[in-house]
Amino acid sequence: MVKVGFIKLGNLGMSQVIDLVQDEIAAREGISTRVFGTGPKMDKETAASTEELKAWDPDFVVMISPNASAPGPKSARELWNDYPCIVVSDGPTKKDDRQALEDAGFGYIIMTVDPLIGAKTEFLDAVEMASFNSDAMKVLSTCGVVRLLQEELDAVTAQVDEGKSGADLELPHILAKPQKCIERAGFNNPYAKAKGLAALHMASKVAEVNMPACFILKEIEDVALTAATGHELMRAAAQLAIEAREIEKANDSVFRQPHSKKGVQLQKTKLYEKPQKV
Amino acid sequence: MVKVGFIKLGNLGMSQVIDLVQDEIAAREGISTRVFGTGPKMDKETAASTEELKAWDPDFVVMISPNASAPGPKSARELWNDYPCIVVSDGPTKKDDRQALEDAGFGYIIMTVDPLIGAKTEFLDAVEMASFNSDAMKVLSTCGVVRLLQEELDAVTAQVDEGKSGADLELPHILAKPQKCIERAGFNNPYAKAKGLAALHMASKVAEVNMPACFILKEIEDVALTAATGHELMRAAAQLAIEAREIEKANDSVFRQPHSKKGVQLQKTKLYEKPQKV
Amino acid sequence: MVKVGFIKLGNLGMSQVIDLVQDEIAAREGISTRVFGTGPKMDKETAASTEELKAWDPDFVVMISPNASAPGPKSARELWNDYPCIVVSDGPTKKDDRQALEDAGFGYIIMTVDPLIGAKTEFLDAVEMASFNSDAMKVLSTCGVVRLLQEELDAVTAQVDEGKSGADLELPHILAKPQKCIERAGFNNPYAKAKGLAALHMASKVAEVNMPACFILKEIEDVALTAATGHELMRAAAQLAIEAREIEKANDSVFRQPHSKKGVQLQKTKLYEKPQKV
Amino acid sequence: MVKVGFIKLGNLGMSQVIDLVQDEIAAREGISTRVFGTGPKMDKETAASTEELKAWDPDFVVMISPNASAPGPKSARELWNDYPCIVVSDGPTKKDDRQALEDAGFGYIIMTVDPLIGAKTEFLDAVEMASFNSDAMKVLSTCGVVRLLQEELDAVTAQVDEGKSGADLELPHILAKPQKCIERAGFNNPYAKAKGLAALHMASKVAEVNMPACFILKEIEDVALTAATGHELMRAAAQLAIEAREIEKANDSVFRQPHSKKGVQLQKTKLYEKPQKV
Amino acid sequence: MVKVGFIKLGNLGMSQVIDLVQDEIAAREGISTRVFGTGPKMDKETAASTEELKAWDPDFVVMISPNASAPGPKSARELWNDYPCIVVSDGPTKKDDRQALEDAGFGYIIMTVDPLIGAKTEFLDAVEMASFNSDAMKVLSTCGVVRLLQEELDAVTAQVDEGKSGADLELPHILAKPQKCIERAGFNNPYAKAKGLAALHMASKVAEVNMPACFILKEIEDVALTAATGHELMRAAAQLAIEAREIEKANDSVFRQPHSKKGVQLQKTKLYEKPQKV
Amino acid sequence: MVKVGFIKLGNLGMSQVIDLVQDEIAAREGISTRVFGTGPKMDKETAASTEELKAWDPDFVVMISPNASAPGPKSARELWNDYPCIVVSDGPTKKDDRQALEDAGFGYIIMTVDPLIGAKTEFLDAVEMASFNSDAMKVLSTCGVVRLLQEELDAVTAQVDEGKSGADLELPHILAKPQKCIERAGFNNPYAKAKGLAALHMASKVAEVNMPACFILKEIEDVALTAATGHELMRAAAQLAIEAREIEKANDSVFRQPHSKKGVQLQKTKLYEKPQKV
Repeated sequence: MVKVGFIKLGNLGMSQVIDLVQDEIAAREGISTRVFGTGPKMDKETAASTEELKAWDPDFVVMISPNASAPGPKSARELWNDYPCIVVSDGPTKKDDRQALEDAGFGYIIMTVDPLIGAKTEFLDAVEMASFNSDAMKVLSTCGVVRLLQEELDAVTAQVDEGKSGADLELPHILAKPQKCIERAGFNNPYAKAKGLAALHMASKVAEVNMPACFILKEIEDVALTAATGHELMRAAAQLAIEAREIEKANDSVFRQPHSKKGVQLQKTKLYEKPQKV
Repeated sequence: MVKVGFIKLGNLGMSQVIDLVQDEIAAREGISTRVFGTGPKMDKETAASTEELKAWDPDFVVMISPNASAPGPKSARELWNDYPCIVVSDGPTKKDDRQALEDAGFGYIIMTVDPLIGAKTEFLDAVEMASFNSDAMKVLSTCGVVRLLQEELDAVTAQVDEGKSGADLELPHILAKPQKCIERAGFNNPYAKAKGLAALHMASKVAEVNMPACFILKEIEDVALTAATGHELMRAAAQLAIEAREIEKANDSVFRQPHSKKGVQLQKTKLYEKPQKV
Repeated sequence: MVKVGFIKLGNLGMSQVIDLVQDEIAAREGISTRVFGTGPKMDKETAASTEELKAWDPDFVVMISPNASAPGPKSARELWNDYPCIVVSDGPTKKDDRQALEDAGFGYIIMTVDPLIGAKTEFLDAVEMASFNSDAMKVLSTCGVVRLLQEELDAVTAQVDEGKSGADLELPHILAKPQKCIERAGFNNPYAKAKGLAALHMASKVAEVNMPACFILKEIEDVALTAATGHELMRAAAQLAIEAREIEKANDSVFRQPHSKKGVQLQKTKLYEKPQKV
Repeated sequence: MVKVGFIKLGNLGMSQVIDLVQDEIAAREGISTRVFGTGPKMDKETAASTEELKAWDPDFVVMISPNASAPGPKSARELWNDYPCIVVSDGPTKKDDRQALEDAGFGYIIMTVDPLIGAKTEFLDAVEMASFNSDAMKVLSTCGVVRLLQEELDAVTAQVDEGKSGADLELPHILAKPQKCIERAGFNNPYAKAKGLAALHMASKVAEVNMPACFILKEIEDVALTAATGHELMRAAAQLAIEAREIEKANDSVFRQPHSKKGVQLQKTKLYEKPQKV
Repeated sequence: MVKVGFIKLGNLGMSQVIDLVQDEIAAREGISTRVFGTGPKMDKETAASTEELKAWDPDFVVMISPNASAPGPKSARELWNDYPCIVVSDGPTKKDDRQALEDAGFGYIIMTVDPLIGAKTEFLDAVEMASFNSDAMKVLSTCGVVRLLQEELDAVTAQVDEGKSGADLELPHILAKPQKCIERAGFNNPYAKAKGLAALHMASKVAEVNMPACFILKEIEDVALTAATGHELMRAAAQLAIEAREIEKANDSVFRQPHSKKGVQLQKTKLYEKPQKV
Repeated sequence: MVKVGFIKLGNLGMSQVIDLVQDEIAAREGISTRVFGTGPKMDKETAASTEELKAWDPDFVVMISPNASAPGPKSARELWNDYPCIVVSDGPTKKDDRQALEDAGFGYIIMTVDPLIGAKTEFLDAVEMASFNSDAMKVLSTCGVVRLLQEELDAVTAQVDEGKSGADLELPHILAKPQKCIERAGFNNPYAKAKGLAALHMASKVAEVNMPACFILKEIEDVALTAATGHELMRAAAQLAIEAREIEKANDSVFRQPHSKKGVQLQKTKLYEKPQKV
């Protein structure tokens, strides 16, 4: 039984399903999952509470939060540096910062494509927040990011299964930019792939648009227009991702990679095909 | 400081954001959130682990899972019956079963509109699962279900704020069917509302379609076609929900209810309007 | 020359084209058609007038109306029980009621997928009525219901052609639920089929939504919103059906089954292919 | 009680609902309807059978068919020239031919916008036929043609109600071209009106495209491509008509003109408004 | 080095790119291009100025303008009748007029599918004008007209390359109606081709609609509604053209005919295929 | 009579209509336009030929080309530095480079939103090139860029009208980034504006995507996929721009600024409104 712990500080698009991707029908044997989350907040004090999960003694943990360089995630990492820990976040993106993470023993998957929400009272309420996360998830799922997570976590899980543990585990060090993500998406039609890749580029652009809305602009019209623009961009990206998948459906060429009960990654492409070992 | 605990067993559409809806920009003072989740699994043994969260001693807990009548959620409830606990689920829907929950001291919000996923290896992989959850969230967010949750949890939080606690807290007892949900959505255009309501009816229908795929059908073609049909239905519902919100945007009449720093529910409708106390 | 009589009481979606489906280009030899209809009304007195058509002495008659259990259709059936008669309607759906029809010598095709219109002065005018029927026909045509009718009527016609008559004719006894209809649609792409099937499920759901609008609700807002919801649901179903057919067009795999001059069902799939006997 | 007889020879788009437009919820008192139809065929022999309906002695008849100048409709008219009779068709469109109709005592509504179907075995089967009729009806309903029919038939009915009969009835003489139809549609938004008008122009163009497919072209590729083009044109027209109505819905400005029980044309525009006498 | 001169009088849809179609990536050797244009105006005086380009002494010229029978284009032709000159326009369409052009030594490509804009102050501003041209170009590019121009100009260029010149050059004489254009589009899917052909028919219809708006109607409502209708028709045509190309993309069957550096027309169909000589 | 000369070197999206924006219906008095273009090429030798236009002695010239820092445009500028000259291009964007332009006496409008095409033989042919330009023009027209050009050129024209000339003319110095452009678009609905702004951001992103396709990547799959991605991004941007304008149409709030015969900028918003002086 491999024990995978998830620590969620604040919220990213990927936070919504990250603990589900290894066991999509809840029937996988030999894997056990626990999640400890702090809800929307991710300050230093809140982050401290994540230590709670150590009681369960996971084989490795996945720590997901926006901006892994912020004080909260940073201090949480310090608490967990005695465990194999994979940082999943939208930053830091700079090479040196990522190297520092790696040098400190952490794995990381930095997703530049997980979009920054327009987090201002003037624009965001619970409904808009959830609707934006839905759009984000449409791109993340369809365009390869979910599968990248699934494959990487499965790879670490497999190591544990084989008897490795602690510092011996090889953790992923991935800067998940559009080009890298799209290769995991398994598109068969090249235009569908191009649409998916365009959607990822658009998702990446959202942060650029929303950044000033969140941190610089003050006037209500500026804040509201800019945040609305970021969310329209995300909406358009989601729509393009949908279009990409519809092409694959129309060709009956949707690549699927479900887990068998034993946790093997099966594969199938035609809808009426049985999933097969590869 | 009100302490709200979330226990997540398995996954519903609403599980993705339920711990975020009271504090959408992570700036609300006076509220603290912790989440303890078990990932995809929700069997009895797994459910037992949720007791962990008692260490934090929340003022009340929200326990979300599919089918609250299943053994896992049931035994989790027994562990938590000394805390004010709101059950959020897609069932039981029968009056007697809900009354029994209430009689046992639990609050509940039973969402018949949170759709059942097509959970079969023959169809579902991590990507399809996440994409389906995106569609579910589009309907849940836009058509009133997210706001219903937000308002109900805020109402209980307000009671704690006012000094109430334990058994004195009035918990919600709501069967969230389409008609009830749509009234919370705040649509101003009646056709947008009708589209939203139609989307909720479609989401409700998904369970009916997916049930045999999940539990009865055996042949690969039957399973795959039926699950695909359920997911197409959900996709169409999401698209209708999107259309509904686009109408409100086109009329600049999107109702928004963001929280102030103090946790007050502000309101605004025109995009360039400041959120106001009501 | 086979003589097929159509009796139309009130209106169903299928009423619009039922007398045309066996002879789509009006060039089929050996078949003759007469229609006697009562317009929108279907009460007992009006129904009595259908006897008029007996003067023509058809080989068999098709009697189409909403709710075949209503007094009008019932009394019309009594008038025609000396002729081979196929009841086409949206009800009764219960097994016993259908068995009673069969025991009384009637054939039947009960289409649970022919949607109930929102027939209230507060909502429906001639334009809305016609527009709804257009949406209904889009689903009925594309998703297998029209072909089911065509094939079943052709089958009875063929028996007459072979010399059978009266009580010797084997009449169809079909409960046309979504699953049964979709199998007649001839979709080649499985996702198109899933979309078509989802559209049929949505059409089935319309009655459930419109029923209270038609018979229970009283307040103008309730009536109008609910009927509008039913029509939005039908609109969305039509759109999904359109999408399904577009997939087949995109694959140049639209199955077609035109009649030859002699009334033989030819078949073709590629657009530039000649229709062939099978 | 006004008795309105409908004679249907062959099929036009409008044939599908013409007998329903005066009594959309089947609750209008003081009007009685009978339909006698000949199915797809409209040759001279078949047309003769329409005399059957005289037994009912209608106050006036509406005779609908493609091309009213064809032998079948022509001979049917001769049989019915002792009754007030309104010819509804897609031709003749020339002034002299229409004047001849009027001189012979007939009313007429010639709808250049009721599209010619691509009636060739190489392309059309029952499904395609019904699907095309659905598209035709979407334009006819939404863009003013259905209302034009409703208003004109109501006007003649009102004369009978007032005691007029036979040759004293003033019958309509209308060449229903796009511009004339759109004025009946009741659009409030001018761009919606422009879209509706464009849709009518497109529907008018269909005949021009399908004419050679039906009567001139011989090669399978030519026939199939051309008929498919006509049907794509109709499909696009339907989509534009849908778009036009969606604009009115988004503005809550859909004009509706339902009949009261007494047959009065009520009016309403906002969805939650009660229909009113004007 | 072949020298191709373009004279642009006023503006057609095709004017936007006509000088670019032979050298789409600006890397073709052996061809040189100059454009002399008069902006929006095309009166006689303005037209005279085009003689300026003679200084460059092109091998042949392409003279593009609306209505080649108007005084401006006519007098420009007289100035250029000592050069091989291909007239590109939307008229004259009549056989005699075209023959007269040919007899006078001109080549011509008369595109009935290049739509007439709604050129009235009451409707058109720079934005609407440019937006309409975008829609026109979508149809012209996707549905074969751009390729027709490219191929015909390449053919004349090839003759110069081979040493021909002046009156020895064989110039095209083409009435570019929908059917002729679509054959150049290179669609592989027949329904995509039908959509493209329908779009061309719609574009042809625009002139018919806009003509009265431009030259007959006076009342603001008539002018504005009619011009808006013409532009909606063009918008719908563009959308249909887009849909047609999307089908080809979904099948990875987009036909492409790029020029090699040497000016050879290469061909490719699959996206990942290298362009090849044929 | 103000004489405005346009020099076009190579092609930008805006090149297609820049000489038309001041005189959209070709009826403006007091303004005369000449265009001298070099087709696709813009190398130094070709650029030299633009001097030809000096014979006409324009009051000012507008020189449009991609990348104004390239050798061709640079040398063309040197030839024209004795005329008031406005450089319109997609670069240089850096402040110093723009200052240098200004210091040398040039006006400039640098449009970061005019997208870089995927100019590779492996992907681009005449059809794809024209189709991309159509998408570019949809964004440029609808989202404020065309109007910015129109207003700025009108402003310089007005100065000439008032008697200014040569170095006394105040030329524009504008870095046309998304935020600046959208303010010229005249959107009334804030969500339409947000969509338009998002479309401009997407158009800006195209260059970033296509740059490596044009200049770095070598493998056919990399080149083709990347260029296709850039074009999909542009397609999605066009679609969003269309959506934005549809909202304004649905609200009958499309801002229009046509020129009167005298060249005055009139304004209107409702479709049936007469354009008025402001």
